[in-house]
Amino acid sequence: MTNIKEIAQFAGVSVSTVSRVLNNHPYVSPDKRESVLQAIERLNYTRNINAIHLSKGKTNLLGIILPFTNHPYYGAIVNGITKQANAIGYHIVIFQTHYEREKEIQALNMLQMKQLDGIIVCSRISEMKVLLSYQKYGPIILCEDTAQAELSSISIDHYAAFSCALEYVIAKGYTKIGYSLGRKKSRNSYLRTKAFNDIMTKHQLMNNQEWLFEGSYHIKDGVQLFQHWSSLPNKPEAIIITNDDTAAGFILTANKSGIRVPEDVAILGFNNDSLSEMLDISTISLPLEWIGKMAVELFENPGIIKHVKLDYALIKRKTV
Amino acid sequence: MTNIKEIAQFAGVSVSTVSRVLNNHPYVSPDKRESVLQAIERLNYTRNINAIHLSKGKTNLLGIILPFTNHPYYGAIVNGITKQANAIGYHIVIFQTHYEREKEIQALNMLQMKQLDGIIVCSRISEMKVLLSYQKYGPIILCEDTAQAELSSISIDHYAAFSCALEYVIAKGYTKIGYSLGRKKSRNSYLRTKAFNDIMTKHQLMNNQEWLFEGSYHIKDGVQLFQHWSSLPNKPEAIIITNDDTAAGFILTANKSGIRVPEDVAILGFNNDSLSEMLDISTISLPLEWIGKMAVELFENPGIIKHVKLDYALIKRKTV
Repeated sequence: MTNIKEIAQFAGVSVSTVSRVLNNHPYVSPDKRESVLQAIERLNYTRNINAIHLSKGKTNLLGIILPFTNHPYYGAIVNGITKQANAIGYHIVIFQTHYEREKEIQALNMLQMKQLDGIIVCSRISEMKVLLSYQKYGPIILCEDTAQAELSSISIDHYAAFSCALEYVIAKGYTKIGYSLGRKKSRNSYLRTKAFNDIMTKHQLMNNQEWLFEGSYHIKDGVQLFQHWSSLPNKPEAIIITNDDTAAGFILTANKSGIRVPEDVAILGFNNDSLSEMLDISTISLPLEWIGKMAVELFENPGIIKHVKLDYALIKRKTV
Repeated sequence: MTNIKEIAQFAGVSVSTVSRVLNNHPYVSPDKRESVLQAIERLNYTRNINAIHLSKGKTNLLGIILPFTNHPYYGAIVNGITKQANAIGYHIVIFQTHYEREKEIQALNMLQMKQLDGIIVCSRISEMKVLLSYQKYGPIILCEDTAQAELSSISIDHYAAFSCALEYVIAKGYTKIGYSLGRKKSRNSYLRTKAFNDIMTKHQLMNNQEWLFEGSYHIKDGVQLFQHWSSLPNKPEAIIITNDDTAAGFILTANKSGIRVPEDVAILGFNNDSLSEMLDISTISLPLEWIGKMAVELFENPGIIKHVKLDYALIKRKTV
């Protein structure tokens, strides 16, 4: 079997240059790259990259587990991951799971099989113990608030961010307040719900279970949320909506129906997307691209388990 | 070196079951999967998946070259690719290039190195000859209109779609018409420009070079496009905008500035995103998810070079 030394000798370059070419390292001169690729071709080496991975135990592939790619929240995190991964010579393998357990297991199995060097879990359905059982095969980074001693994590303090949102709405004089979530079962939803209950109790405000809405992901979910809100005999006067896309869908549908925001119903979103800026939606800005970048940095340092929390900011606009 | 037969023997299952587990094939009973994984563990086989790839020449990874993931157009194509790829047991490796040549070459090199079984090129900057030089290493599928005999392609007839858009705007009585593109140099832009020139000439309408706008990708580009339009002493009365996101940015900024659409300026978009539906933007519907699905089908049949064209539809709403 041809080895790297032979290629280096044939190409007239150093072994480390061959290694850089094989790993798609950016800092190789075009001439040297060409010589190496020609040597590989001549020595019929092309099928052997997996043998190199075998000996190195590295593929320079980083798996990303996420429910949807086609969404501003995950899109922004993936952007951050991609930028940082590219900077360290890694490529990303996307596992779009739609929250199916099987898809997450496929990614974890690929980590076990050394097809991936690590995994970043943006959002998950699998239990923590499942993730922990794969931890010995390579770094698994969680994009969620956790105190797990075995896995590094990067997160926003969703409890504090939601509390900030709710305190702002209450300070504006609203008392009949509802909120919407993606899935009730997620860690983020748990924290948002806890914050809601705590703050409402603190202010002695009524916590109406009818005003907890679910399934808010995309702009079209905002249309449904508006219709749901419209159909309620007893309506909340303000809704804290899980993300700006859904908030935008709500507000645009409200406008068409002659319902005024914030006069008839106040809306506060999350994320601070371009769309929220365009529509003057009050929102909580979340540093999503930074989550992605930091997740890759945590992956780079598997020896040190860290739990990093990033900051948020209240953006006051015109919908509360 | 442990081989598949030994694992099968140890686990008490067939060789094909081991193969299915190694390839993350969905149809394996949990019990058998567990036995195989235990055997792998016991035989210290985990580092050897790349050796299997070496012997099979397959990794079940499909590369996708695209400029941005965080965009409805590519997001929808990626969704289609992911669905179809998952259905045939493939995972996707994303190469987000921002139109940097180097990034495209990295993907192509991974095809050469057999780290990828094929590549779908959603949009590119590299010359066709570069792609052709890698074609011997595995199927490369183009999501663009091409008559290349060596590579399969899936596309929308952008010339016809743009012509349809322009004829509609002209039929509505507009004569001072501009249009916006992403990059001038892309194949799609070439076809849209050709359609524009042909149809305008046919109707003996003035083709004002000042009314060709560039750099239209995201919602914020629509803000700039509006500012550019506002600053022109001689303004077009209608603009065909490269995608709904940019059209939305234009329209929302126009609304804030007291400019009425379509009374002061008519706008037609492309894609038929949720956002265009919400904002009643007239648009050309493009079957983006189908492009993704069909691209994977073409990848599955590398022996047959095909050029598939998908249909478009004019969606009449309120902005023209």
